Amino acid sequence: MYKGVNASEGIGIGNVMVAVEPDLSFEPHEVADAAAEKQRYADALAVFCEKTQAQADHMKETVGEAEAEIMSGHIMLAQDPGMTDSINQAIDGGTCAEQALVDTSTMFENMFLAMDDEMFRLRAADIADIRTGILAELLGKEVVDLSVLPEDTIVVVHDLTPSMTATIDKPHVAGIVTETGGRTSHSAIIARALEIPAVLSVANSCSALRNGMRAIVDGTEGVVIADPEADVLEKYTKAAADFAAEKAALESFRGQKTVTADGIEKILACNIGSPDDVANALDHDCEAIGLFRSEFLFMDSPELPSEDEQFEAYRKVATALKGAPVIIRTLDVGGDKEIPYLHMQKEDNPFMGFRAVRYCLANPDQYKVQLRALLRASAFGDVKIMIPLVTCVEEVKAVKELVEECKHELADEGRKFDENIQVGIMVETPAASLIADKLAEVADFFSIGTNDLIGYTMCADRGNDTISNLYQVYYPSVLRSLKNIIESGSKAGIMVGMCGEAAADPLLEPLLVSWGLEEFSMSAPSILRARKTISQWSKAECDALAEKVLALDTAAEVKAALEAAQK
Amino acid sequence: MYKGVNASEGIGIGNVMVAVEPDLSFEPHEVADAAAEKQRYADALAVFCEKTQAQADHMKETVGEAEAEIMSGHIMLAQDPGMTDSINQAIDGGTCAEQALVDTSTMFENMFLAMDDEMFRLRAADIADIRTGILAELLGKEVVDLSVLPEDTIVVVHDLTPSMTATIDKPHVAGIVTETGGRTSHSAIIARALEIPAVLSVANSCSALRNGMRAIVDGTEGVVIADPEADVLEKYTKAAADFAAEKAALESFRGQKTVTADGIEKILACNIGSPDDVANALDHDCEAIGLFRSEFLFMDSPELPSEDEQFEAYRKVATALKGAPVIIRTLDVGGDKEIPYLHMQKEDNPFMGFRAVRYCLANPDQYKVQLRALLRASAFGDVKIMIPLVTCVEEVKAVKELVEECKHELADEGRKFDENIQVGIMVETPAASLIADKLAEVADFFSIGTNDLIGYTMCADRGNDTISNLYQVYYPSVLRSLKNIIESGSKAGIMVGMCGEAAADPLLEPLLVSWGLEEFSMSAPSILRARKTISQWSKAECDALAEKVLALDTAAEVKAALEAAQK
Repeated sequence: MYKGVNASEGIGIGNVMVAVEPDLSFEPHEVADAAAEKQRYADALAVFCEKTQAQADHMKETVGEAEAEIMSGHIMLAQDPGMTDSINQAIDGGTCAEQALVDTSTMFENMFLAMDDEMFRLRAADIADIRTGILAELLGKEVVDLSVLPEDTIVVVHDLTPSMTATIDKPHVAGIVTETGGRTSHSAIIARALEIPAVLSVANSCSALRNGMRAIVDGTEGVVIADPEADVLEKYTKAAADFAAEKAALESFRGQKTVTADGIEKILACNIGSPDDVANALDHDCEAIGLFRSEFLFMDSPELPSEDEQFEAYRKVATALKGAPVIIRTLDVGGDKEIPYLHMQKEDNPFMGFRAVRYCLANPDQYKVQLRALLRASAFGDVKIMIPLVTCVEEVKAVKELVEECKHELADEGRKFDENIQVGIMVETPAASLIADKLAEVADFFSIGTNDLIGYTMCADRGNDTISNLYQVYYPSVLRSLKNIIESGSKAGIMVGMCGEAAADPLLEPLLVSWGLEEFSMSAPSILRARKTISQWSKAECDALAEKVLALDTAAEVKAALEAAQK
Repeated sequence: MYKGVNASEGIGIGNVMVAVEPDLSFEPHEVADAAAEKQRYADALAVFCEKTQAQADHMKETVGEAEAEIMSGHIMLAQDPGMTDSINQAIDGGTCAEQALVDTSTMFENMFLAMDDEMFRLRAADIADIRTGILAELLGKEVVDLSVLPEDTIVVVHDLTPSMTATIDKPHVAGIVTETGGRTSHSAIIARALEIPAVLSVANSCSALRNGMRAIVDGTEGVVIADPEADVLEKYTKAAADFAAEKAALESFRGQKTVTADGIEKILACNIGSPDDVANALDHDCEAIGLFRSEFLFMDSPELPSEDEQFEAYRKVATALKGAPVIIRTLDVGGDKEIPYLHMQKEDNPFMGFRAVRYCLANPDQYKVQLRALLRASAFGDVKIMIPLVTCVEEVKAVKELVEECKHELADEGRKFDENIQVGIMVETPAASLIADKLAEVADFFSIGTNDLIGYTMCADRGNDTISNLYQVYYPSVLRSLKNIIESGSKAGIMVGMCGEAAADPLLEPLLVSWGLEEFSMSAPSILRARKTISQWSKAECDALAEKVLALDTAAEVKAALEAAQK
């Protein structure tokens, strides 16, 4: 049994196929005819881009638009003039194309790796993937081909690159195991989109697992079992069947309203990162967008996106939702999110630093570009503005003043916008929780960000494995904080939602119903399950469970009580 | 007017003397007779150590034992065999002693600087100071001499090194201005101990201020005014007189009990960092030790201090307090406190990482050494054990189990200890505040650590200047948290104290009295002022003020209301 990162849920049982990467070694040599060598590189690059484009097109149909863009991104990166120039210069100096490619791409890769940020680590992985692809073209080798696989294959590979996943023979893949990557790596994102069980970062899996071996991939628990005993195999076969049956049964909730057993209506919303995610969110039957993380617009751009660019992105989502609410969070930069062109200072404790609304209020002219774009988009749907990382009443008032300024400007310019646009806040800091009643007087709605709220309350960085036991929603302190926030908002008559991962936790949902949460916002694949969970509970049952749980002292006791009560 | 860091309070008015550092440039040359050159270095080192020892002795009398140890530390560092070996090797290779010293010391200095930690930055400053001293000996130059000064001198210097302060002509110094250093630098620590007003990190002050210029140093506000107008001078002269008068008036509170205007007794305790600080704490009339930061025992040692070494340190404090309470905090490592030999991993957000009780519970055998030492010391006074960074009931229970284990072991060994030793907690996390009632059932006392509590509640790193406006105790969220903690502890009948800087804040003290805080623990020089403040307020007045303040929405409003109410 091997432990790894549970990157994509579900159970896969099948036969191992270790995808061996091709030997791309070469003998560096001096070139005499630089022009011919540069042409050889240009040809290889062209073939690579052509193949990649074909993969992207294939991926767009089989996986999704956002995932296909990862492949299109490869083409842009491979054609980057800086990279091409550097390679051509090296060839002019007598280096062969292979060596020039390896040298230049490694330089770029190391540059990205040095930036010590998840986004850049992804870019470094992209560069490595491109290098492999072009090098294979130059050397006339084939890269790993997963496009035709036997039935029920457990694909074991050092790193599942975007180009591999683009062509993967999805119907025949039972599970994926890799030696690298975390929950936010490309591999994980794509495995989840493909709904293939995946366990990542299983050390030495390429050598420990051998071709033809029977194996179980439990992507829910992050466990791989090789050569399982009969009883283990039986247990997992049943679990896999249950998982499939449950998923099928969830389909009966499609198109239904979200109501508790005693008829209280709730809203099931989606968290999205780009306008391209909307189609998938609607496919999964969401009723609203509870969180549109606008920072991805900024991260994917080489400079500050203009008002028009932002407006287009927001309008696209607002239009697609046809009048259903769209909550757009204003720029949440800092913390673990870096945007190179903003040149922000390195901090000792970035989570407790200059981020989100703090940064925005310190740069009001820049912030107003976003607020104006949001206001203009509000003419096309039910757009609401959400302020991240609020800790005090002062911040909300300051943002609302800027919004009023923008309204006056837009009115003077004769532009349309929703005069009554709602300005609400993420409740994700202990300070905001403590003064939720005061904040409810100045904010138009609350959306609880449990991911940060848990971390700040427990003083535990979510990314720090050493203290992961403290990063749990089940601690009585966190539950009390949630209860206080929801009840304070409800009492003031404002909408209270939740856009942290806890909103999709079936164990927690009865408590949230008891306290009066109105909107549950989550990733698209969780929608139907949440609708089912909510349908199983009456308010009175939820209240009884909440009362029982709040009397407990430890996270383990709380979790056990919630599990025992699960329907 | 120049702004700087308010490092030592009070107002000094006098004439500027810019202490110019000597020209220590030299012409590097090859040496033929390595043995003679090594002897030359050894001689210079010996003279340096001798002078430094004299300074240390002088300092012990005029400033204090702890401060004198900084100088003794220089001698040890200068005689460090690693450093001497490296210098001698360089000389053997033909390098002159000056260059060998500069090269080696710079290497050590950079090594310390690279460690990115306050403690090591101090060590780097020590190395620079030693280099200057030995180099001056080698070159036959005099280092800055502040031992004889005209009356009312405002000393302006690039960096106030420990060796300068050791010999400073204290009675004639009206104020200190430096170009570098923060509130926790050696310069700041020593200026406070000497009770000389000091403003540090005033950029370019050595060139902006000129010899003989009249200047005002406002160490309370962190402001330096050069060539003041007559009205400004008059204002500050009066302020300086008021400051002196107030200080003198405080002497009438010496030896008195600490009671509110209506007779409620409180405890005024000191925060200390080493057994050497006890004398100073008692000098300042403290009634107990509210916080003994045991980590300094670990930081000042090259390896884990043994049970006996720890026992000696704890016993020394317990004995000196003659039965008055001594609260000793168990190892609070991590966060911004690094102990090299523990080889802890670098973290993205150390304040939200593997620190304090988290580290200790993960290393129970090591933790038990400290707990055993504390138990043994409890036979010599009223020693109480305090657990830092508690976030859940589980942690308190786990520590108490270890304490019970240690008691059994000690009983079996026939050693004495206080069977009823109290085990309390620092309340310094939002989680602990939220479940203060539950924690009061398992902890024997609370001591509120406002420094961390403010930071965690407001999600604002105290060391991050960009967001310093958010790091304030006056935010309604923080005040509510304090109120809840104090009232929860009082309701459960356990002692509630405070050992964060807010305990010494005259603005805040009436609120703390209202909520029922029993013990106020602070740095020694604040004791008498706190006793006066508390004596000025009746419980009813405090309650009225607290009620008024809690109804306010912003930190500015709260602070203004507290200032208006100040007596």
